[in-house]
Amino acid sequence: MNTTLTLTDIRAAHARIVDKIHRTPVLTSATLDALCGSQLFFKCENFQKIGAFKARGAANAVFSLTDAEAARGVATHSSGNHAAALARAARLRGIPAHIVMPSNAPKTKIESVRRNGGIIVFCEPTLVAREAECARIIAETGAQLVHPFDDYAVMAGQGTATLELLEQAPELDLIIVPVGGGGLLCGTAVAAKGARPGIRVIAAEPAGADDAARSFTAGHIIPLERASTVADGLRTSLGERNFPLIQQHVDGVVTVSEESIVAAMRRIWEVLKIIIEPSCAVPYAAIMEQKINVSGKRVGIILTGGNVDLDALPWLAK
Amino acid sequence: MNTTLTLTDIRAAHARIVDKIHRTPVLTSATLDALCGSQLFFKCENFQKIGAFKARGAANAVFSLTDAEAARGVATHSSGNHAAALARAARLRGIPAHIVMPSNAPKTKIESVRRNGGIIVFCEPTLVAREAECARIIAETGAQLVHPFDDYAVMAGQGTATLELLEQAPELDLIIVPVGGGGLLCGTAVAAKGARPGIRVIAAEPAGADDAARSFTAGHIIPLERASTVADGLRTSLGERNFPLIQQHVDGVVTVSEESIVAAMRRIWEVLKIIIEPSCAVPYAAIMEQKINVSGKRVGIILTGGNVDLDALPWLAK
Repeated sequence: MNTTLTLTDIRAAHARIVDKIHRTPVLTSATLDALCGSQLFFKCENFQKIGAFKARGAANAVFSLTDAEAARGVATHSSGNHAAALARAARLRGIPAHIVMPSNAPKTKIESVRRNGGIIVFCEPTLVAREAECARIIAETGAQLVHPFDDYAVMAGQGTATLELLEQAPELDLIIVPVGGGGLLCGTAVAAKGARPGIRVIAAEPAGADDAARSFTAGHIIPLERASTVADGLRTSLGERNFPLIQQHVDGVVTVSEESIVAAMRRIWEVLKIIIEPSCAVPYAAIMEQKINVSGKRVGIILTGGNVDLDALPWLAK
Repeated sequence: MNTTLTLTDIRAAHARIVDKIHRTPVLTSATLDALCGSQLFFKCENFQKIGAFKARGAANAVFSLTDAEAARGVATHSSGNHAAALARAARLRGIPAHIVMPSNAPKTKIESVRRNGGIIVFCEPTLVAREAECARIIAETGAQLVHPFDDYAVMAGQGTATLELLEQAPELDLIIVPVGGGGLLCGTAVAAKGARPGIRVIAAEPAGADDAARSFTAGHIIPLERASTVADGLRTSLGERNFPLIQQHVDGVVTVSEESIVAAMRRIWEVLKIIIEPSCAVPYAAIMEQKINVSGKRVGIILTGGNVDLDALPWLAK
């Protein structure tokens, strides 16, 4: 079991999962480039299996297990993309995935886990209840916990998107990534800095869930007390294993307003003609707000997912 | 000036415009393939310049003009994607484009023409008023009329999408295309049948604007009296130059319900994570309705455009 994360781990992860994931395309837009005076390269993980980069980390975690470990299955508590990603990875390996979900989880998320063969266990919609239920299942079955982000194998898997991006869009000056728990951010930063020491990595976060920005400044983890953001994928606090890696490898954390997130999401839909979640509009929102100087630079942006409730678009909300 | 359309014309068009358009990607989906028991290849013209295949035909028409013809500019009457496409092509050639638009045209369409440098002339929102205004401008300026579909150079340009598709997705058994005026349909059918004689080409049309289906069966053009469909790009009658080519090269015309169009559009948004107009959901709606037997076949589908009003999505309509 690893005790940190290195470029070598991420390269090994890529070799392990390359036939289990899509090599997603990188899109560019002359219109968006003209608006910000830089060259933007959008890595489209919204086109990834299960519609999000989470397919990478879950696949790496599941296929890193020994046969004996794997035979007892895997477990997690999540109501988001990680749940579907873990169910899918377990199905590919032919092992059970126990997914603890709050009883009020959105129907589309439940269906996505079910479609991928996950064994769903419902619980009360509190973090305490979720963790207790997950612990009970692990005690009973011997299943391996696969945490959504506070896990080195998961982080290594998420970092594989950046290995591809660096090949697809060479000579990047800067990569901007959204940050929630820090799984993607750590994978991205370790991959980018390892492969290209001169590159900068900036995290972008909703002001309404700014624990990463405050923790980064304070030098210690300040947990999120209350999240108030449309970016539902980013309503989590930094993980314990994630924070030291962020301190070591990330150049800065910027925050953006809710208005900017919705405007950025809408502009990407309109100009790139692709469907992205609110969470992945956060880096482009940071460019719109001029929180990051991108002038004349080649900028990579990881578009993290495309699982959106088409009945509840944020610009149509009352 | 051509008096018909051949594969040679379409190949010449491609050479003429290849540096002025995107070579759009072809997307596939294991999920959609499993649902219909065939292999679907989506040619993504929603990612084309100005967000629609119309960029191809307009570019070919404008760059086919002699310098003397071009100097007097081009003109059209259109409130849709062709207007923006013609404005853009004229800008690339450095000549004026006079665009007659109804005074009640959607703001986004007006902005798109303006952004591309078109000279907009507003008129009463009737076909008679539009044609009269366009004729007046042509008489005054000597501008060349570029019709949205009843024009061989435009058809040749639209057919270039199929030349690319045949390279990107070899061994297709069948191509399904939406039909409005017939510009894309003629270009597609002549390109496909010319390059691959065994291939089938089927047109798909909203039942609420079924003039192509009725004309095809009757053997003569039956103009559309009243269009009632969400597929706003297909509310036109077949062109005079288009119909004989359709009779000669197209294998069949099928119609689909409004409910299917909206369901097909939504499914493509959800599964492919891309934004398409209602009009380009019509071929996939025909597959959902089992109007075309695609079982075990390799099927090309041209996704024609992605210019959608994000404030007025059809599944959210009252």
